[in-house]
Amino acid sequence: MSASPYKQLEQEFKRLHSFRGALSLLRWDAAVMMPRGSADVRGEQLAALETEYHALLTSPRITRLLDRAQANTQVLSDWQIANLREMRRQRDHAIATPVTLISRLALATSRAEVQWLEARQQGRFELFAPHLEEVVSLVRDKAALLGQALNLAPYDALVDEFSPGVTSTDIEGVFKSLSRRLPSLIREVIGLQDAVPLKPLAASFREDKQRALVVEIMKAVGFPFDRGRLDESEHPFTEGVPGDIRVTTRFDRTDLFSGLLGALHETGHAMYDLGLPQEWRDQPVGRDRGMALEESQSLLLEMLVCRSRAFVAYLCPLLAKHFGVSGADWSPENTYAHITRVRRSLIRVDADELTYPLHILLRYELEKKLLAGELAVRHLPEAWNSGMEQRLGIRPTSDADGCLQDIHWAVGSFGYFPSYALGAVMAVQLYESLRAEVTGLDAEIARGEFSGLFGWLRTHVHGLGAKLSVHELIKSATGKALSPAPFIRYLEGKYLEGAATIAAA
Amino acid sequence: MSASPYKQLEQEFKRLHSFRGALSLLRWDAAVMMPRGSADVRGEQLAALETEYHALLTSPRITRLLDRAQANTQVLSDWQIANLREMRRQRDHAIATPVTLISRLALATSRAEVQWLEARQQGRFELFAPHLEEVVSLVRDKAALLGQALNLAPYDALVDEFSPGVTSTDIEGVFKSLSRRLPSLIREVIGLQDAVPLKPLAASFREDKQRALVVEIMKAVGFPFDRGRLDESEHPFTEGVPGDIRVTTRFDRTDLFSGLLGALHETGHAMYDLGLPQEWRDQPVGRDRGMALEESQSLLLEMLVCRSRAFVAYLCPLLAKHFGVSGADWSPENTYAHITRVRRSLIRVDADELTYPLHILLRYELEKKLLAGELAVRHLPEAWNSGMEQRLGIRPTSDADGCLQDIHWAVGSFGYFPSYALGAVMAVQLYESLRAEVTGLDAEIARGEFSGLFGWLRTHVHGLGAKLSVHELIKSATGKALSPAPFIRYLEGKYLEGAATIAAA
Repeated sequence: MSASPYKQLEQEFKRLHSFRGALSLLRWDAAVMMPRGSADVRGEQLAALETEYHALLTSPRITRLLDRAQANTQVLSDWQIANLREMRRQRDHAIATPVTLISRLALATSRAEVQWLEARQQGRFELFAPHLEEVVSLVRDKAALLGQALNLAPYDALVDEFSPGVTSTDIEGVFKSLSRRLPSLIREVIGLQDAVPLKPLAASFREDKQRALVVEIMKAVGFPFDRGRLDESEHPFTEGVPGDIRVTTRFDRTDLFSGLLGALHETGHAMYDLGLPQEWRDQPVGRDRGMALEESQSLLLEMLVCRSRAFVAYLCPLLAKHFGVSGADWSPENTYAHITRVRRSLIRVDADELTYPLHILLRYELEKKLLAGELAVRHLPEAWNSGMEQRLGIRPTSDADGCLQDIHWAVGSFGYFPSYALGAVMAVQLYESLRAEVTGLDAEIARGEFSGLFGWLRTHVHGLGAKLSVHELIKSATGKALSPAPFIRYLEGKYLEGAATIAAA
Repeated sequence: MSASPYKQLEQEFKRLHSFRGALSLLRWDAAVMMPRGSADVRGEQLAALETEYHALLTSPRITRLLDRAQANTQVLSDWQIANLREMRRQRDHAIATPVTLISRLALATSRAEVQWLEARQQGRFELFAPHLEEVVSLVRDKAALLGQALNLAPYDALVDEFSPGVTSTDIEGVFKSLSRRLPSLIREVIGLQDAVPLKPLAASFREDKQRALVVEIMKAVGFPFDRGRLDESEHPFTEGVPGDIRVTTRFDRTDLFSGLLGALHETGHAMYDLGLPQEWRDQPVGRDRGMALEESQSLLLEMLVCRSRAFVAYLCPLLAKHFGVSGADWSPENTYAHITRVRRSLIRVDADELTYPLHILLRYELEKKLLAGELAVRHLPEAWNSGMEQRLGIRPTSDADGCLQDIHWAVGSFGYFPSYALGAVMAVQLYESLRAEVTGLDAEIARGEFSGLFGWLRTHVHGLGAKLSVHELIKSATGKALSPAPFIRYLEGKYLEGAATIAAA
């Protein structure tokens, strides 16, 4: 007796999962290990594998099996039904984009990534511009085709790839609240913080010592170094699959927190991936529930946990141990003040919780315009710089600190940026529920224990894989629909905490 | 008008070339970067890609195109005709092995490789034995099927995969000469060398300094670090494709020459790959002409060039520069004596030119017996140790220095070892012709210039790709059929050079 259509599909998707893992490794290597001159060769390899992946996923056999399995769902468990739905989702997305476009995008983005790196290092946007133009034009074609097939606006179709079920309406609802409240809140908080003198943490931090510190904290968090790696790259990222998960960061000798928090942001992603349901690990339903939720997990760790007083209590003795620092400058109070310092700054990945969403709002606005043809690539630097000035009150003097700082557009990831701001909002809503349910959390974190934290997240988020939609998951984990209110409330509570005291003083 | 069948085949094989490159990177990563616990995941990825590669290569479409192109060869150039022949060769080899066997072998060898590493580090053969048993059994099946399809004896079919057109008859002809002359020659040379006291080169060589030395020499040789890498691994190897070529070595603090010569051996492979015809780089005819010829190129650099007086003249100032060594111990004379020291030793990759072939003869004998079922895996350590005693007069005390030292069997590469001894023989025959035609070679090498050397090799070997058969290539490059005579003559000339003098003294 041959296997059921559903079981045959599981076999096919297991194979596709291995392809995804191989593709992920090729990308990791390109960013971390590959010699600079090998980009063309790697581009061909990525294109060949992506083309083949696409061909396997859109084969008539898969379509036939999906239809046959769909006709007989009464024999399936709810996980299997969800898996079948995710299989079809992947296939529907894939079939909307012709294979020639996939392969041209793979080639173009692999070339663009190398040129982006070069342009960024030299601060010369013109090196990157023609490559970005090509990518934009191909992504625009893809968005149009995807939108047609999925009955979505082109930009929404791209967002749907990254965060299934999330729409422009969701995004704009949240973004409107943020752009209403954040600018005044930032002014207020900066005013408050400026009134309290901050002791500078000037020192030089050797890269190998920073690495040792990061590794120690990642181990405490639960990152498995026997099935994962930490490396350095131009831009922090996470690649790989559960079972071989690889995060990167970059170390700055003059800024200890940049490398540490970058690594912990990525560790947040990794912990999500590692917590996915093991028995579904090679199936579509065993994957993460899209990038907004991914970012909620990275920001939850980086912003909510690591920039808390409890974490600082754990961190300070480690700083003394690894760097031999001590005294009033390195007191928990002063360290916390540094790690929660709100500043109008140029670099998104180094931004604080309050200004971070504004970085995203700018990118969201610009990428929509680029795709709609309302902004030409050659005008991007100026649009970026004046957007920064308008939103954050500062203007980059080099494109390296401006529109060249992120890798996303180079690799064709348009529609991704909103995930960060949505993720920040989701993170707080989840963390509010988590804190209400896990007792003694701060005391645990202060001791460098993270099992309570991740226990809750595994039960309510990670372990569900892609079984629920984003909105269902938020509802099931927090009892409420997605809302920016907890986020605003949290920021006000945390950053205006001293306000009353100071006003009274 | 659609492309001709031949042109369509070129497109298909270009895609297969990219798959090969991706597979090579997955293997490189597994040996150099991958966390130990990720072997299962990687095994699945390798199996998925190899299965797909096999399916593409053996598709009815390829068969149909091959037949149609074959019917119309009068329109093709001689390179295209050779390319078509190599395409068919690859397809014939692939179709003889069913896909289930390919995938089981990929899984088994990827597990076996990890266990081999573990077993070797612990010196515990029993950890590796069950995995090797599985690999042997699968390779035996493969050899039987391949042999049937290609009308070759099973072992010859495996050899044919690595070195097309090379047979057991070729191997045994050469091996008979070697086992007749080498044992007495080794005795004689050791006797001579023992009569001249050698000044010890005791020092400690920091790994980073060894690496800097190796990089400087590799650059002089012509290795392109913008399209290649040097890393460290348990066992030196070369992976990748021209355009992204990666060699490894391992550094021993107490033995400077082990890491250096290991790296230069691999650089010899890399230079062959880099010299392959650029315009055919993604086609079967643009590949190397099998592993015996590959080893001829690695050994030519490692043994003939780097263990020469000319190279030592170049090396000694570099040793002074990188390690600050000087004095009589580090004179060219004493360094040369070290680098050409003949010793009965346990480790193949550290062996000298004279004893090296005996290491191979042992492996050849044992792997034939393992496959024929005449030697059980559990008896391998004993068979190895007594074989070493018989051939080289020394006996390993740990399997780590015995039958666990090589990776080949773990990864299923049975039929590969003869390539090393045949390669050594070919290397000398090629080098004899090269020296006769390139004037001033020694002076160039002594200055650290290698363009004369590689100029000749590119014209007569590298640049021909897989256009000629092994035997045709040797004949065309040297004017003579393959023979062990130049090898024996070379060893006698080089290692008995002082004999007359000493006898007269």
